[in-house]
Amino acid sequence: MKTVVWKSLSDTQQAKALERPAISESASITEAVEGVIKQVRTGGDAALKALTEKFDKVVPENIQVSQNEIDAAEARLGEEIKTALKQAYDNIACFHKAQKAEPLTVETMPGVVCELVTRPINRVGLYIPGGSAPLPSTVLMLGVPSQIAGCRKVVLCSPPPIADEILYVAKLCGIDEVYNLGGAQAVAAMAYGTETVSKVDKIFGPGNAFVTEAKRQVSNDHQGAAIDMPAGPSEVLVIADEDADADFVAADLLSQAEHGPDSQVVLVTPSPVLAEKVADAVKAQLKVLSRADIASQALGSSIIIIADSLTQCVAISNNYGPEHLIVQTKNPRELLPLLDNAGSIFLGAWSPESVGDYASGTNHVLPTYGYTRTYSSLGLADFSKRMTVQELSSDGLQALAPTVVAMANAEGLDAHRNAVTLRVEKLNNKK
Amino acid sequence: MKTVVWKSLSDTQQAKALERPAISESASITEAVEGVIKQVRTGGDAALKALTEKFDKVVPENIQVSQNEIDAAEARLGEEIKTALKQAYDNIACFHKAQKAEPLTVETMPGVVCELVTRPINRVGLYIPGGSAPLPSTVLMLGVPSQIAGCRKVVLCSPPPIADEILYVAKLCGIDEVYNLGGAQAVAAMAYGTETVSKVDKIFGPGNAFVTEAKRQVSNDHQGAAIDMPAGPSEVLVIADEDADADFVAADLLSQAEHGPDSQVVLVTPSPVLAEKVADAVKAQLKVLSRADIASQALGSSIIIIADSLTQCVAISNNYGPEHLIVQTKNPRELLPLLDNAGSIFLGAWSPESVGDYASGTNHVLPTYGYTRTYSSLGLADFSKRMTVQELSSDGLQALAPTVVAMANAEGLDAHRNAVTLRVEKLNNKK
Repeated sequence: MKTVVWKSLSDTQQAKALERPAISESASITEAVEGVIKQVRTGGDAALKALTEKFDKVVPENIQVSQNEIDAAEARLGEEIKTALKQAYDNIACFHKAQKAEPLTVETMPGVVCELVTRPINRVGLYIPGGSAPLPSTVLMLGVPSQIAGCRKVVLCSPPPIADEILYVAKLCGIDEVYNLGGAQAVAAMAYGTETVSKVDKIFGPGNAFVTEAKRQVSNDHQGAAIDMPAGPSEVLVIADEDADADFVAADLLSQAEHGPDSQVVLVTPSPVLAEKVADAVKAQLKVLSRADIASQALGSSIIIIADSLTQCVAISNNYGPEHLIVQTKNPRELLPLLDNAGSIFLGAWSPESVGDYASGTNHVLPTYGYTRTYSSLGLADFSKRMTVQELSSDGLQALAPTVVAMANAEGLDAHRNAVTLRVEKLNNKK
Repeated sequence: MKTVVWKSLSDTQQAKALERPAISESASITEAVEGVIKQVRTGGDAALKALTEKFDKVVPENIQVSQNEIDAAEARLGEEIKTALKQAYDNIACFHKAQKAEPLTVETMPGVVCELVTRPINRVGLYIPGGSAPLPSTVLMLGVPSQIAGCRKVVLCSPPPIADEILYVAKLCGIDEVYNLGGAQAVAAMAYGTETVSKVDKIFGPGNAFVTEAKRQVSNDHQGAAIDMPAGPSEVLVIADEDADADFVAADLLSQAEHGPDSQVVLVTPSPVLAEKVADAVKAQLKVLSRADIASQALGSSIIIIADSLTQCVAISNNYGPEHLIVQTKNPRELLPLLDNAGSIFLGAWSPESVGDYASGTNHVLPTYGYTRTYSSLGLADFSKRMTVQELSSDGLQALAPTVVAMANAEGLDAHRNAVTLRVEKLNNKK
């Protein structure tokens, strides 16, 4: 990890130090994904089978995973992992249930009642990546809120063969349909539907460059589907002072670094002593990791910043806007009111990122790549939508009429005015 | 207006009857907007002036509207419209203040505290269209929530000359910077910033095809800005039974139709008698409207649907997903729990759409074009973002450790496990 002293850098150098790697917009990926989406829309299930054979090198007997297969997966799993997944399920459910929006009713003027009501998004699609290791935790992060929101149809796609852990969590979360589908073809199938796969309204979940591009394309098409949020590489920023345990900080930096070679890892500290200790601890801990190769690559583009003060550390973090923000200082809670632009915040020595990745209860689907400035940590709200309601009494309408009439006149909209005056006249005639 | 009997239509004919007009994706608009954005990004203020001269045929002395000009606009306005705008401001503020999210704190397990905290989006840009009539109501709908959310910088762009009503409301809402800028160039200026115009994080507001395309383009660029929601033509669906007043229903249909020739207007009723009365009333009321031409065009593609029952009316509405949904039935509130996929709902005879367009308190920026299935009525949440926080005690971490360790093992992520085991070992060594 490279160490820099913040105040010794020019504005340009500071900006450069916090620059994220460019996400290459590859024309070949765009075109390939366009091709796959077109193939799925015209060819349906047959196209899905052909694409799965081509990309995943397997042809599952059925696109849809049967209940029997799900039950068999559950039977094969050991008790230890089942207990762990159930505990994580309970914590995530507890935190997301608490996010249920109560209906809001406000009388803005006598006789003018305005309400905000929430409805589940009816049909949602969850994408769970395959690859080197199964990600049952991501099934929890998407499946639990869809269940609590009350979405009527929940569809899950993951490239075959789907791990037992994923099928088990899908069952825990009451997911309605599970498909042996990965990549852009899975996204296309959920966005447009096929003979077998149900069309959904919104697609959630992480994926590789093809999945990300497919999500972007279907979300730009009115007939496609909405998506959760834009994607970028995973990242952590740690604020630590001289009180922090260097081993803990190093372990947290490494647990971000092992996610992938493009992971972003930043430590900001007012303590040069801690900076050095952490750098040493990272080297020592790295040696024994099974994914040391990946972590080393990520650390190559990572940085330790020595700041003047904790206040400056906070300013640097707010400017960077990290997905994960770990605060290991003497009084971490004191800093919370100052923290902004972060996906999820981990306060204190006993709150490593991995508890949030798995089981504390918070969601691990978070905005990355600076999107923390405008996007939220995934939550129940993303599986719902808010509608407004208004109901006026005849007195309420009469009281509000002069306001509406004056504004309609100012905007030159006669019919808007008439809809009010016509009613008021009828009321006056009745009197 | 064309009248159809729902049960006499085939599935395909039913789908066709509710089909929205295709939004033409014009390659020439895409290219023109790309050109404008590029010009603004490279040319800054000079480019803005040149583009304003080209498209708006005026060259304001300054891009930014001065405080003196705003004060002068206020002084020129009559008391009646100022009183109306203030009343609308109060009602909208009242309803949006009630949407403030309380911080949420949940102990998911003993010693594992999870929180949801809300922060304002720091810098927001509001686009207010110019054209035939000024839209001070849209300034209220965007300006009030940005003020209540506590956004640190609020920028407003509107094509010159900007109406006094717009400047007055901008002052009411405490908007920080107002610019004489319209079209794609205004969106580009807010998304990327220039010497004079502040860059913002998120852009809100309606506009023509060029503005909509510019919003789409900057929202697809990571260096650009987020946007409020996808755009489409405005629309209303009215559910009315034989108890409804045909004049009221006709007035509501017309106040939607006068918005623009592409406005969508739908009446669904179980009563053929009412259907006929409304059709007649529409013809009669249309004659006296100043925007009768526009309304007539919109009515050309509008439809009256005769359904079997109110239940079927609700099903048709939920399937269509209207921006505005007006319910004029004997017991409108009874239907509310069944209603889904609507932007804003107007219950009963005394709640015409124009009260929500202006002054009841609800927001008039609503999802259109079927986006009601996944998008929400604009509200305070859109000017904020949610971050999660977790803080574990040492006991909390020890209790959660076996869960995290088992899941990290299942996902093959050593460093995730180490970040927990290393802490637990230190705790055990201390004992």
